[in-house]
Amino acid sequence: MLLINNIRLSRIIRNTWQVDLIMIASCMGAYFVREYLIAYHFSVPTIIPTVLGTAIAFFIGFNNNQAYDRWWEARKVWGGLVNDSRSFARNLLSFVPPGDENDEIVKRMIRRHIAFLYALKANLRSTVDLIYVKYLEESDRMDIEKHNNLHNAILLKQSEDLERLSRSGQIDGFKFIQINEMLVRFSDQMGMSERIKNTVFPTTYSYLTKVFIWLFVVTFTLVISQEMGVWSIFMGWMIGFVFVSTQINGMNLVDPFENNVAGIPLNQITRTIEINLLQMMGEENTPPPVTPINDEYVL
Amino acid sequence: MLLINNIRLSRIIRNTWQVDLIMIASCMGAYFVREYLIAYHFSVPTIIPTVLGTAIAFFIGFNNNQAYDRWWEARKVWGGLVNDSRSFARNLLSFVPPGDENDEIVKRMIRRHIAFLYALKANLRSTVDLIYVKYLEESDRMDIEKHNNLHNAILLKQSEDLERLSRSGQIDGFKFIQINEMLVRFSDQMGMSERIKNTVFPTTYSYLTKVFIWLFVVTFTLVISQEMGVWSIFMGWMIGFVFVSTQINGMNLVDPFENNVAGIPLNQITRTIEINLLQMMGEENTPPPVTPINDEYVL
Amino acid sequence: MLLINNIRLSRIIRNTWQVDLIMIASCMGAYFVREYLIAYHFSVPTIIPTVLGTAIAFFIGFNNNQAYDRWWEARKVWGGLVNDSRSFARNLLSFVPPGDENDEIVKRMIRRHIAFLYALKANLRSTVDLIYVKYLEESDRMDIEKHNNLHNAILLKQSEDLERLSRSGQIDGFKFIQINEMLVRFSDQMGMSERIKNTVFPTTYSYLTKVFIWLFVVTFTLVISQEMGVWSIFMGWMIGFVFVSTQINGMNLVDPFENNVAGIPLNQITRTIEINLLQMMGEENTPPPVTPINDEYVL
Amino acid sequence: MLLINNIRLSRIIRNTWQVDLIMIASCMGAYFVREYLIAYHFSVPTIIPTVLGTAIAFFIGFNNNQAYDRWWEARKVWGGLVNDSRSFARNLLSFVPPGDENDEIVKRMIRRHIAFLYALKANLRSTVDLIYVKYLEESDRMDIEKHNNLHNAILLKQSEDLERLSRSGQIDGFKFIQINEMLVRFSDQMGMSERIKNTVFPTTYSYLTKVFIWLFVVTFTLVISQEMGVWSIFMGWMIGFVFVSTQINGMNLVDPFENNVAGIPLNQITRTIEINLLQMMGEENTPPPVTPINDEYVL
Amino acid sequence: MLLINNIRLSRIIRNTWQVDLIMIASCMGAYFVREYLIAYHFSVPTIIPTVLGTAIAFFIGFNNNQAYDRWWEARKVWGGLVNDSRSFARNLLSFVPPGDENDEIVKRMIRRHIAFLYALKANLRSTVDLIYVKYLEESDRMDIEKHNNLHNAILLKQSEDLERLSRSGQIDGFKFIQINEMLVRFSDQMGMSERIKNTVFPTTYSYLTKVFIWLFVVTFTLVISQEMGVWSIFMGWMIGFVFVSTQINGMNLVDPFENNVAGIPLNQITRTIEINLLQMMGEENTPPPVTPINDEYVL
Repeated sequence: MLLINNIRLSRIIRNTWQVDLIMIASCMGAYFVREYLIAYHFSVPTIIPTVLGTAIAFFIGFNNNQAYDRWWEARKVWGGLVNDSRSFARNLLSFVPPGDENDEIVKRMIRRHIAFLYALKANLRSTVDLIYVKYLEESDRMDIEKHNNLHNAILLKQSEDLERLSRSGQIDGFKFIQINEMLVRFSDQMGMSERIKNTVFPTTYSYLTKVFIWLFVVTFTLVISQEMGVWSIFMGWMIGFVFVSTQINGMNLVDPFENNVAGIPLNQITRTIEINLLQMMGEENTPPPVTPINDEYVL
Repeated sequence: MLLINNIRLSRIIRNTWQVDLIMIASCMGAYFVREYLIAYHFSVPTIIPTVLGTAIAFFIGFNNNQAYDRWWEARKVWGGLVNDSRSFARNLLSFVPPGDENDEIVKRMIRRHIAFLYALKANLRSTVDLIYVKYLEESDRMDIEKHNNLHNAILLKQSEDLERLSRSGQIDGFKFIQINEMLVRFSDQMGMSERIKNTVFPTTYSYLTKVFIWLFVVTFTLVISQEMGVWSIFMGWMIGFVFVSTQINGMNLVDPFENNVAGIPLNQITRTIEINLLQMMGEENTPPPVTPINDEYVL
Repeated sequence: MLLINNIRLSRIIRNTWQVDLIMIASCMGAYFVREYLIAYHFSVPTIIPTVLGTAIAFFIGFNNNQAYDRWWEARKVWGGLVNDSRSFARNLLSFVPPGDENDEIVKRMIRRHIAFLYALKANLRSTVDLIYVKYLEESDRMDIEKHNNLHNAILLKQSEDLERLSRSGQIDGFKFIQINEMLVRFSDQMGMSERIKNTVFPTTYSYLTKVFIWLFVVTFTLVISQEMGVWSIFMGWMIGFVFVSTQINGMNLVDPFENNVAGIPLNQITRTIEINLLQMMGEENTPPPVTPINDEYVL
Repeated sequence: MLLINNIRLSRIIRNTWQVDLIMIASCMGAYFVREYLIAYHFSVPTIIPTVLGTAIAFFIGFNNNQAYDRWWEARKVWGGLVNDSRSFARNLLSFVPPGDENDEIVKRMIRRHIAFLYALKANLRSTVDLIYVKYLEESDRMDIEKHNNLHNAILLKQSEDLERLSRSGQIDGFKFIQINEMLVRFSDQMGMSERIKNTVFPTTYSYLTKVFIWLFVVTFTLVISQEMGVWSIFMGWMIGFVFVSTQINGMNLVDPFENNVAGIPLNQITRTIEINLLQMMGEENTPPPVTPINDEYVL
Repeated sequence: MLLINNIRLSRIIRNTWQVDLIMIASCMGAYFVREYLIAYHFSVPTIIPTVLGTAIAFFIGFNNNQAYDRWWEARKVWGGLVNDSRSFARNLLSFVPPGDENDEIVKRMIRRHIAFLYALKANLRSTVDLIYVKYLEESDRMDIEKHNNLHNAILLKQSEDLERLSRSGQIDGFKFIQINEMLVRFSDQMGMSERIKNTVFPTTYSYLTKVFIWLFVVTFTLVISQEMGVWSIFMGWMIGFVFVSTQINGMNLVDPFENNVAGIPLNQITRTIEINLLQMMGEENTPPPVTPINDEYVL
């Protein structure tokens, strides 16, 4: 998540230089074709880039809207994880009567929940990140690693511990369903995150947009070169840049769990939950919040 | 679901060649009509295709938005099935106390749930796919096949087994309602899938869009042929192609349960749930995940 | 709900002939006014129909979006009725222990629910349709007919029978709340259907749209007749037809419970539920599904 | 809520005459300024009103969409009140066992709920309407009037009576939570209504729209007067009228609880609930439904 | 929240004067560049600002829609806090049987909830506002201040008191879950508020919009100066102002918890809840409602 208001030129160029080169080459091609071939035969009607502009505007707008929706939905899902993690810990801490064994189970479950979040984060970011192991007991860890889906396996463990509290009569049915409800919500949120990560945004939209922007830039340059001459190469690229940067902008949001500056700051969110939960358990040595990198973004 | 970023030309041509031929023929007709008839009487005002372009842009935008919404809703429904299937299995496994008979019921219910998913998938794809039988007991199967709606009949069986656990006191009321809640959600999700499958997207929209695109291509060619001559046939087709491919693109999403590359990858999702549930039951021989076809798409 | 891909010309003409005549007359008027009056004084600027086109595009788009939303919401509400009807029957059948009196109550409640659906359908379609009587006992029927709102009265009856099961100890509190929850949902869905039926889409939108399309057609014809002469009458009508048919198209969806080809196929949906519920009760003589009329549409 | 399809000219003029006069004066000013000042120095480029038109189209579209959403949300909230009021009465009537005292409490609660609706309606319409008193007992009334928020105070009374039923063992915990759930929903719906009423639609949008429409009308008249002469005054006003009436149209929906023809028909809805609830209690003398005024609208 | 219909000129100038100066300087620059450099070489095609206008219209529309959505979501979240605060107090007051100790706990919990709201408000507005301390007992306060997240710590305290009521048998499980449900909702609403506050609206959108508006103003002035001469500076600024003010307008809504006139009036809402809750507890000396500042806005 970017924190600053102005974007460095270097960042923009790094994102678009390949496309910029292709566009400048195309504009130059269009200029020369018109100057030395078309000019002697016919003039290019203005309505062609105008109509193409309409089609592109729809495409880019559509892509950006859907991309932003995916990004905002992902943010909401993780916001929900924050809220439910706190409620989960609060319920465990106040519902389970004090006592050595009980305290241990509660502590184990809250710590295991932090492990759940770290395992889920690592999976969404497609990284191998063993930080979750820190919050798991050795036996848990071995059971969990038999599963393809680690975070789902952790939830199963939570459910078993909760059942233990219920069967031994430490919590009654009413309290049981409220804590179990949180496990169901975690299952929903983890599945929703996986859905956003695993569903490819329909390729046809992003592919056709690229083709149509290219068509637009070429016909646009053909048309304006009739009035502007060689300056049309610069103008063609500039207008093309407006469309291309908008499109790239949207496509950066479409996979919100990627580990880049446009993504959801999972590191920061997970750490916030970690601190909240540890403090609720009365721990005083909590890790520091995630700080921005270069004062520019958080991950 | 397409996985690659670039779409093969062959795929595009396969999808649009008929429309392309019609458009080229129409553009040629328009060119000759203007050249040999209209040219001697009047000029065609540019405002006609411009205004038509606005109408078409609305239509295509509207169709694409609604189509994408159907597709994304379908994806969410099946995402919900993933989440609730895991919670269903997790609850059964941890709520029901161990014991020979109990273990058998739990196992039967989880396996029957996999059968439910396969039966629902076959129905949504309008295929006869007997894979669901594998996860059913013989007696279940015979009862179920008396019904028009197989997956609904399977849910009724689940409900009976759940009631058995409840009546024999293996699970208390609190646990009972939480498992039953999952059956209600499955009923909702199966009904939502059927709704998307069975509701025809209002034909008038797709039909009128086709008519208006054709009108646009013809009047557009009439107008630009005044400046471009015979080249207007090519340009008319090209701009028409932009609109047509966008429209076809959207219409490919409108029936997201079809067994094609644009649809929801039900095979992949069902298999994921199958693996998760089998592993949660402790089975080690799980089927492999669904792999992409040609590295291009999954079904 | 239309099932076919192409719409018969006869259907389109039947829907729009009055408007077509008005438009042709207006275009002719505009042509003659310009030819014999305006032409000698000033030319009509192209920007007038262009700007009007923008306003109309907004209006028609807005109307269509809201109309589609009403239609799709109506479809979702009845989809919800399908899902909850099945869950309601499933819960009753599995929760209530077998026994002569119990079986009778369960059967009565499920049949009364089918009556509820038929009574609601008749009300939404503003027809007198006594089919619901078939599924009611005589005493029920007499009580119910004292009420203005028949379907609400049926729900009250359901609630009384459910209370009977609860008070006699046949179902415990947990099962009770789950069945009662379904009655609450039916109450919601019936109220949502009534809301869509009884709320007139703001008249000002549809009225002003008609006025503005007329203004557009007239000024458009004024402008193009400067270049096209008498052919402008045809073109003016054609472009007007594009807008008018889009607008009429949307307005056909705005009242989705009307008994016409654009509406929600309540007959088909109700019958589907009827068959499902009868089969769940083990009845073998179920009525046939609703079949399309002329292979063209279902109601 | 307007019921008719055509809007009387008198109603439109009544709504817009002030703005119409301002626009005609502005168009005349623009005409004379161009004719006697600008004409000798430069011509006004068409692109100016075109670009302004785009900005206005966005603004008006945005305002109308948000206004309609507020209106439709308000309608949904009151639709929810209809549904939950019926469920509330149904639950009370069937859950509470018959008996003199019980019957009295049930009757008192249902009547008090009607008072709640009337008190809420009066508050939303900012009127003093003492009809709610009719359905309250004297002692209730005195307690309630100590509060700033009458309807919230009524809910507190309901909660106390419900607790009375619970504490005396007339209803068990399961039935208790279902009735209490309805009170929570009423609290939600009343708060949602207050939110819509009390949140001013951001003034900046409506204010800037007015300014930009005025700018548009002036520059539009400047441009078309170059071709149309004095007729531009009429045309400028006409196009301005199209935008202004659309904007006013939307702003009429933005406060849906106002007591005007565009608002939600709270009188009608409240009366419908009143009749339903009285009939459910077996009363036969129910007040008549609200009838349309002049066959034109209901309030 | 602004309450008046017309915005003072001074407020607009205060918000935009920097941008206005930049725009006027850019327009002057464009005018002179065209007059003394470009005019001798080529003419600038009108299509350039037209196409840029389309891109900008999309950007500004997108930004405004998302900004309004954030603002309205924030308003809904706090509306939900109003509703649930009332239900929370109502439930506590009617569920807990009278008695000295009980009354004290109930009073403490309701007062602590008011503290929760004030602490949350101070956090969202990034101010140090110790008003919440007034409603807390000394011991609570010391525990709470050990946490980074004060409002989360307050919820933990509430949960402990609720558990106390439950464990001592003052409220049964049914009542317990209903009050606890409210704590879960408060946790959700507080997390949702934090999400809106802490998620930076993607910087790329607001940054690129600024760049593109500037490009538009410059090319627009280049084009119209061909017809209007020096007046183009004024017109370029005016049209630029239309876009800029719209953009700034939207960006004022994007952080709805800021303590400015465009934000959600948290002071007013919190005070409303405070008054409602105190009156429900029977207190007669309630603080006055928040009054508008200058009759212009509330905070």
